[in-house]
Amino acid sequence: SAPWSVLCYYAEEISLRVPLQVVTAPIANWSEHLLSSLSLPNPLCQEVPNPPPDYYTCQFRTNKLERFLGSEDKDTFFKTTQRHQVLYEILARTPYGCVKKGEVGIDRLISEQVFTAAYPLHELPNPPVPKHSLGLRQILHQYWSKWSCWRRYQPLDHIREYFGEKIALYFAWIGFYTGWLLPASLIGTLIFLVGLWLVATDIPAKEVCESGDTFIMCPLCNICSAWNYSSICNTYKAGLLFDNGGTVFFSVFMSLWAVTFLEYWKRTCAALSHRWDCSDFQDIEERPRPEFTAMAPMTMRNPVTGAEEPYFPEKKRFNRTVTGCMVIIIMATLTDFCSQAGRIASLSGSVLNLIVILLLSRVYITLAHILTRWEMHRTQTKYEDMFILKVFIFQFVNFYSSPVYIAFFKGRFVGYPGNYNTLFGVRNEDCGVGGCLIELAQELLVIMVGKQLINNIQEFISPKVKSWWQKKKMHPRLKEKKDKALDEVHTEEELSPWEADYQLLVCEGLFNEYLEMVLQFGFITIFVAACPLAPLFALINNWVEIRLDAQKFVTEYRRPVVERAQDIGIWFPILQFITHMAVLSNAFLIAFTSSFVPRLYYRYTRDSTLRGYVNFTLATSPQNYSHQYHNTSCRYRGFRDEKGEHLPEYFHLLAIRLSFVIIFEHLVFFIGRLIDMVVPDIPEEVEMKIKREHYMAKEALAENQVQY
Amino acid sequence: SAPWSVLCYYAEEISLRVPLQVVTAPIANWSEHLLSSLSLPNPLCQEVPNPPPDYYTCQFRTNKLERFLGSEDKDTFFKTTQRHQVLYEILARTPYGCVKKGEVGIDRLISEQVFTAAYPLHELPNPPVPKHSLGLRQILHQYWSKWSCWRRYQPLDHIREYFGEKIALYFAWIGFYTGWLLPASLIGTLIFLVGLWLVATDIPAKEVCESGDTFIMCPLCNICSAWNYSSICNTYKAGLLFDNGGTVFFSVFMSLWAVTFLEYWKRTCAALSHRWDCSDFQDIEERPRPEFTAMAPMTMRNPVTGAEEPYFPEKKRFNRTVTGCMVIIIMATLTDFCSQAGRIASLSGSVLNLIVILLLSRVYITLAHILTRWEMHRTQTKYEDMFILKVFIFQFVNFYSSPVYIAFFKGRFVGYPGNYNTLFGVRNEDCGVGGCLIELAQELLVIMVGKQLINNIQEFISPKVKSWWQKKKMHPRLKEKKDKALDEVHTEEELSPWEADYQLLVCEGLFNEYLEMVLQFGFITIFVAACPLAPLFALINNWVEIRLDAQKFVTEYRRPVVERAQDIGIWFPILQFITHMAVLSNAFLIAFTSSFVPRLYYRYTRDSTLRGYVNFTLATSPQNYSHQYHNTSCRYRGFRDEKGEHLPEYFHLLAIRLSFVIIFEHLVFFIGRLIDMVVPDIPEEVEMKIKREHYMAKEALAENQVQY
Repeated sequence: SAPWSVLCYYAEEISLRVPLQVVTAPIANWSEHLLSSLSLPNPLCQEVPNPPPDYYTCQFRTNKLERFLGSEDKDTFFKTTQRHQVLYEILARTPYGCVKKGEVGIDRLISEQVFTAAYPLHELPNPPVPKHSLGLRQILHQYWSKWSCWRRYQPLDHIREYFGEKIALYFAWIGFYTGWLLPASLIGTLIFLVGLWLVATDIPAKEVCESGDTFIMCPLCNICSAWNYSSICNTYKAGLLFDNGGTVFFSVFMSLWAVTFLEYWKRTCAALSHRWDCSDFQDIEERPRPEFTAMAPMTMRNPVTGAEEPYFPEKKRFNRTVTGCMVIIIMATLTDFCSQAGRIASLSGSVLNLIVILLLSRVYITLAHILTRWEMHRTQTKYEDMFILKVFIFQFVNFYSSPVYIAFFKGRFVGYPGNYNTLFGVRNEDCGVGGCLIELAQELLVIMVGKQLINNIQEFISPKVKSWWQKKKMHPRLKEKKDKALDEVHTEEELSPWEADYQLLVCEGLFNEYLEMVLQFGFITIFVAACPLAPLFALINNWVEIRLDAQKFVTEYRRPVVERAQDIGIWFPILQFITHMAVLSNAFLIAFTSSFVPRLYYRYTRDSTLRGYVNFTLATSPQNYSHQYHNTSCRYRGFRDEKGEHLPEYFHLLAIRLSFVIIFEHLVFFIGRLIDMVVPDIPEEVEMKIKREHYMAKEALAENQVQY
Repeated sequence: SAPWSVLCYYAEEISLRVPLQVVTAPIANWSEHLLSSLSLPNPLCQEVPNPPPDYYTCQFRTNKLERFLGSEDKDTFFKTTQRHQVLYEILARTPYGCVKKGEVGIDRLISEQVFTAAYPLHELPNPPVPKHSLGLRQILHQYWSKWSCWRRYQPLDHIREYFGEKIALYFAWIGFYTGWLLPASLIGTLIFLVGLWLVATDIPAKEVCESGDTFIMCPLCNICSAWNYSSICNTYKAGLLFDNGGTVFFSVFMSLWAVTFLEYWKRTCAALSHRWDCSDFQDIEERPRPEFTAMAPMTMRNPVTGAEEPYFPEKKRFNRTVTGCMVIIIMATLTDFCSQAGRIASLSGSVLNLIVILLLSRVYITLAHILTRWEMHRTQTKYEDMFILKVFIFQFVNFYSSPVYIAFFKGRFVGYPGNYNTLFGVRNEDCGVGGCLIELAQELLVIMVGKQLINNIQEFISPKVKSWWQKKKMHPRLKEKKDKALDEVHTEEELSPWEADYQLLVCEGLFNEYLEMVLQFGFITIFVAACPLAPLFALINNWVEIRLDAQKFVTEYRRPVVERAQDIGIWFPILQFITHMAVLSNAFLIAFTSSFVPRLYYRYTRDSTLRGYVNFTLATSPQNYSHQYHNTSCRYRGFRDEKGEHLPEYFHLLAIRLSFVIIFEHLVFFIGRLIDMVVPDIPEEVEMKIKREHYMAKEALAENQVQY
């Protein structure tokens, strides 16, 4: 759609890569390898027609044109997505006013609402044709976004061909993640089953259930009454499901799983970005955001190009960014504190809490948008990164504060009968009758399953509603047009493709999709010690998620302008941060929240069959308390003597717990580091390919061969 | 010395970078900035004549010749070092036999002793000339390697110009390191002075000195006799010098210092490698090592170039590497164990230990050479990296095992009077009368000062001896030559430059220099809690070291072939590893070896003036022991009751110690991470320069400007 010479000029300018030679190497796939080495059929495979060929490529240079593959046919030499890029580049550069004031390009015009939209067209929905001549969009529709494809590999090459690298990388990542969830959820389920067996044979559980009236427990709150420890028999057993030796193993496993997952994603990402020719994609000097140029208070010489450009002082931006971060952190802590205070006063249950969380996150996102805009970042990438970071901090605090509270703080500062600690006059909340871990597991299940259900339903319904709304909005205009058309004696014509596409929704970017996945990743790693089933739920959710997202992109969104990317950007360091947090959190969860350490201690110092363990964990209330209230002594969880002082066992246990934390952390981080070092970031075969490509490019483009 | 066209061909082949435009920016220097902003004169500056100009550069292309600076004068367009590179490239590629068997290049010929040496010539020692026309070597001699330059900046640009980037980077690194030692040693000395003051006012120290016969201590070994605690008054005070609150602060400081040092070295390195045009230096496909080609058992098609090449199976190499590492680790542990056993049996003192260490390291290096050769690495870089790693592991275990033993194991498993633990029938060694920390400090001082003295003397003397030996060896031949010369009626001619240079020593590479510095870095960071004066000693040593090394390179070595490098290679990850170790080690040192925690505990639970602290730390021997031996009870260090059981205080302290470790580690690692994130790896101005360079290269080399 642009003249050949213009195409060539811009292709060189934005360093497009063009093919030198065909390679026929499918995407390497470990599951395929595994199955074929076991000579099993691969149920994940499917034959997708018209796979885009893979090439050795090098940067385009006009004067070397004849050395490139396919240069005879000028109509097909550049791919559609490449033409889009060139066209977008031209549109983005065209000045429409004073260049010095940054009045350049289509983006600015759109942001100032001169135009309402600019988007490339979808391929037309062709009439049914034989398989081999299907259009790309039809292929994607048929072999990717349909529900029946749930157990197939995604046709990544096709996705990239149609939507560009950025979107393809998202789907590659979520597919990769889902694949890795498979072993995790398998082992998680196994651990759960082992837990079931352990519960059946556990002696303390039997002791609890058969204790009858032996253990009269002190009331859990000021207005409660005393209760019988044997009454929580079932809860105790349920707690054991999540709190046994298997969980310790699973925490270690999941921590290492997370590290390995990230390592291998790096490799896959490197392989993909090389396959898609964006591995040495360097940002061409990015243009300033249109909003930035519109609002920048002054201009300055750009030290790189020497041109006059809108400018915002670095120092002021830094100050604003710091202020922005402050506001975010204060906001997050405040909201968190409020909701916690509510929880402590037991105003809301898990479900209500979830609704509050979902509501708050909407408010948060708006605030983050405003703040990030105010910080005046020059380029779109920088803007997006800061925005993502802000929202992530928000959401992290928002979603994780309540599990963190339950896991590490609830019930720790209760005091003991007769000397309860109070906060603002209210007695500190203790964990429920079953202990803190079971409460944490409950909370997690509600948040994970609830959130995912709500999100999926929302994702399923909201596009339908939105597109119905959009169609309705446009109806009057269409009618007008139809009337006009009738006037002009054209009969009932179909909608032109740009009008049909205009009715579709604006593509909102991948931010929400990524955020959802990353938060999920956090839940299944940070709190895995509390719920070995979490990976299974995540797996099921992701199977649905992938197809939902695919449908959105193929049928419900306008076709987005192709964006290049060589990795998932700022999300990767965020994932690394979560992995780190996970190790810490698991160490402390096992050491302090679970009953692993006291059981171990009892087993080795008292009785290897754990007989009498229940009695060991329960302290007797101080005499004065007993006299004051019921004249009978009652029991409570803790290691204290009859005066309320800590027993020596308490300190022994404390030392063991702390040692456990130190050993666990050092061990896991050390093994993680080892994995990091041993696994090369770029797969060997990809490295070989890159070298081969460099070599071939050099051969093809060599200009002078001196003979001497 | 090669024809112009050949030069051009190879320049393009090995992608030499050539100048586009002069920049006049001196190396950024924080100390200069600081002094000039305080408007103080800078005593570190010196005017070095003929500074090599700095350029914006881009890759050489013959057909764009006229766009480069200085392209008129074909004699000076390529610099001497660049010519060396080209010549070496030609020599290294020339086949002399069967190409398939790898019989290619000068390296192989030298390794098979067909030639004895190949080296570029030094510049001739000119007669005295005015300053501005001094040769590079003379400048270096006068403005760098002289002792009088000890307080000056090094003329890095000149060094790079004459010796190439790899050697210049070493000197840049050691200079940078020495500069950073300055604040560390300053604060270390301050802490030491504070220690002196604290000792004078310390109440427990006074109690010890004035205790008279109050504390009769149990004998420290089976044949020793009981002793009086007041007799160690001075040792106790000396121990306090290294064991007070200031040391805790200094450990934190040094841990963060190390992290920050590495971060800023990254920046300086990036700035230098950009200034010297090797920042995007990608290894041109490295040639196999000559030894490799000679010994490889088979040939295979190189998948990159398609040429037949000597080959060694990857799997076999991996197996050999693993075996090699095993051998190393077993060797290291064994030797370590032997020397430790010797120590435990008190056979050797610190000095003897040092001599054993120095001897063992010679043996080790030979072994590492043999093993690495056996592993058959293909390229020189890989070979060197593996060799460095091996020797480093050796030396690390070798040098650090004895301080580690003293710091963390000695005196921990002694047991108590009447129930001493034994190993092989020998009672476990206790720390000396003054405690473990003072012993560690002693050991460190001996190793650091002793090792550095021996090394420096060795470095000073051994080249002289060696070059005297070399001259003597060559004398007969020279005489012969002289006789011949006389025969041919030439009168007493001077030595030709290649003969004069042949008499010099072969440059041994930078391995030993780096190793020495890195081990020193380890001592001053890992054990800093035991000796705040260590950085000061390191600083003094390095001042001497730099000039010694400079003299070696300028006057005693043959001129090495220019090697490019963009950083200090594998040494950087090794430094990072040491920094990590340092944090762990300091955490445990302060928590368990120093008396910081018990003093803190006593201060807050018993008496804030520490009165009675000495009595608190000493346990009374069990009654049966007293009866058995002397009929009077004696005291020993520990928190036990009269039966030898641990007191509750012991467990309280243990919990506090462990918590301290956890808090210290998390805090320091967190702050380290923060520094890592906040400080950008490439300084902003360098980034700007790189962008500007890219932009200019694009402008200069653009081939077609389509007008439309």
